[in-house]
Amino acid sequence: MSGEARTGVLRTRSGKVRTPFFMPVATFASGRSIGSEEYHADGVQAVISNAFLLSLRPGVEIIEELGGVGKFMGFDRAVFSDSGGFQASRKSLFSGTSRRGVHFRSPFDGKRVVMTPRRVVEVQERLGSDVAMVIDDMAPADAPREQFMKSLHNTHRWAKECKDAHTDSKQLLFAIVQGGYDAKLRRESAEYLTSLGFDGYGVGGCAIGEPKVDMYRAVKNSTPFLPQEKVRYLMGVGSPPDIVHAVSLGVDCFDSIFPTRNARHNMIFTFQGSYQLEKSRYAKDRGPLEEECDCLTCQHHSRAYVRHLSLVNEVAGERLRQVHNVRFMTRLMERIRSSITEGSFKKFRQEFLHDWFQGKIPKLYK
Amino acid sequence: MSGEARTGVLRTRSGKVRTPFFMPVATFASGRSIGSEEYHADGVQAVISNAFLLSLRPGVEIIEELGGVGKFMGFDRAVFSDSGGFQASRKSLFSGTSRRGVHFRSPFDGKRVVMTPRRVVEVQERLGSDVAMVIDDMAPADAPREQFMKSLHNTHRWAKECKDAHTDSKQLLFAIVQGGYDAKLRRESAEYLTSLGFDGYGVGGCAIGEPKVDMYRAVKNSTPFLPQEKVRYLMGVGSPPDIVHAVSLGVDCFDSIFPTRNARHNMIFTFQGSYQLEKSRYAKDRGPLEEECDCLTCQHHSRAYVRHLSLVNEVAGERLRQVHNVRFMTRLMERIRSSITEGSFKKFRQEFLHDWFQGKIPKLYK
Repeated sequence: MSGEARTGVLRTRSGKVRTPFFMPVATFASGRSIGSEEYHADGVQAVISNAFLLSLRPGVEIIEELGGVGKFMGFDRAVFSDSGGFQASRKSLFSGTSRRGVHFRSPFDGKRVVMTPRRVVEVQERLGSDVAMVIDDMAPADAPREQFMKSLHNTHRWAKECKDAHTDSKQLLFAIVQGGYDAKLRRESAEYLTSLGFDGYGVGGCAIGEPKVDMYRAVKNSTPFLPQEKVRYLMGVGSPPDIVHAVSLGVDCFDSIFPTRNARHNMIFTFQGSYQLEKSRYAKDRGPLEEECDCLTCQHHSRAYVRHLSLVNEVAGERLRQVHNVRFMTRLMERIRSSITEGSFKKFRQEFLHDWFQGKIPKLYK
Repeated sequence: MSGEARTGVLRTRSGKVRTPFFMPVATFASGRSIGSEEYHADGVQAVISNAFLLSLRPGVEIIEELGGVGKFMGFDRAVFSDSGGFQASRKSLFSGTSRRGVHFRSPFDGKRVVMTPRRVVEVQERLGSDVAMVIDDMAPADAPREQFMKSLHNTHRWAKECKDAHTDSKQLLFAIVQGGYDAKLRRESAEYLTSLGFDGYGVGGCAIGEPKVDMYRAVKNSTPFLPQEKVRYLMGVGSPPDIVHAVSLGVDCFDSIFPTRNARHNMIFTFQGSYQLEKSRYAKDRGPLEEECDCLTCQHHSRAYVRHLSLVNEVAGERLRQVHNVRFMTRLMERIRSSITEGSFKKFRQEFLHDWFQGKIPKLYK
């Protein structure tokens, strides 16, 4: 319920991050079509990079020598690094787990790489990210209960090993709650990880193809058992209504390719819902992608022009659409934070969902 | 010889363009990875769009309704439109010429389209470009003399038809000199077109695969027979040494995909010559792409970072490289103009070629 929505501050060595916040991805220390400049201009407070992939290219040594991932990419706000565990949902990279850790295949040369808890911590400390994530064992969404239990066992052991290996006191270390969609396992995981004491807690195993009702069951059975004063991070979630709903369940932090991937496919986000820009009704539309948006794209270009760039497939158009969708996300998070501060989040949530779904709010969010 | 280098001003309805100048391409009213904002920031004075392709997408009607190509693309400086004649060098688009005009195939649906002189003028007037180009009949670089003569005949007749059809007194109309690489035909073409009286003159049939010695023969046999007070535009030429050399032959205007296409392939331009960024020697290089460059990329990013983005194939990196190369071109043109003003162009030319070729200046440029 919306009573649990919270706002606060996460202190990192790169500065304060106001919560709740959304992180666009910077997998290889950049977005695909947009980079650090656009993220700065869009008001992004934090991005998330991928420690496993960065350890392959350009390699930790180079990033370490160049002053850490934030300095390397020219982004002066918070940079999270994902351990790579979430990549278990990408079949092209993931080749399995063992007691030792997660086994990957390099997308560059096919070489097998084992990410152990020690290695994951070492890589992230050397990358110098503001927030490091433990490595977790994420079972697929449709796994049998025994597999969830086994994965949970690894997840917990590895979380402890990560914590023990972690020495950089200026880098925050977040654990990741697993346990599938089972109330008991989730609670057990949240309570165990809390007992170890981390700087924040991811809720993992979500946004990997499970029904949303399962995802919310996982969230609802995790957040209440996590410490009030620590950030809760719902990993991989980025659809605007899911963010608004998850905030009402006490989540503070999100990341996803959702806004940028949809921008690639011409889906434009607005506070009146999303729309497909390629539709012919926008062919002569002089208006911006969204009225009242202050992003670079909306300040300088018409729907007709950005649509035209989509139809002729110029990458410059993908960038303009991504600039808008990412700015939409930061505007959404600003509104969420200010409505929480003003005590009107419940109202904001209802109005937002109403407008996003054009009055037909799915039962899930009610 | 460098005695003919000139500097001046081309007055367009979008404002003055200081000559000599270089135009990056905006074929579909945008670059591929960089657009109007980057062109503005890079100090680009003019871009060139393609009238034939824009007439297919988004169509002249839309651009006309949205206030013309400059307003449509959010570029507030000069926009040239090429008639499409230069596309005769692109086999995928070109299907031949007849007495009526140039026959194209649409890259979108394969439909045949004839661009007649009347149509070319109508399209460009409706696009509202600052400078329109006549349609010309460009023979391939290796055509026999009879074909050059026949093409010249069409080129001249079409130029007259374009001039007669052109009614927009605020839009400049440039003719295009043809005649292959034959001194007599070039002179004949330059003199005939001059007798008709245009606002400027393109030198066509260059940069289409001919040996450079032929290209310079074409230029040297065209510019002396064009009116002193009108702009001379060497179409399709964009390599820095060729620009510097052609300026010494009295050329004022250039366009090419050369800087942006090379940026795509990791070739970085500097006043010390070009280099391939993917080389391992740049892996840990903290310096900018070029010392003393004021472009966005050089102000914010290291060679190591931009190289990394190349190696992991992020489009955002292509944009950063293109921003630099285009800024290099505008810096080059600024230096050319100021050295002409100061009477030191001959010296500048020698030093530039010396540095670009690391002391080994090809005979062609001597």
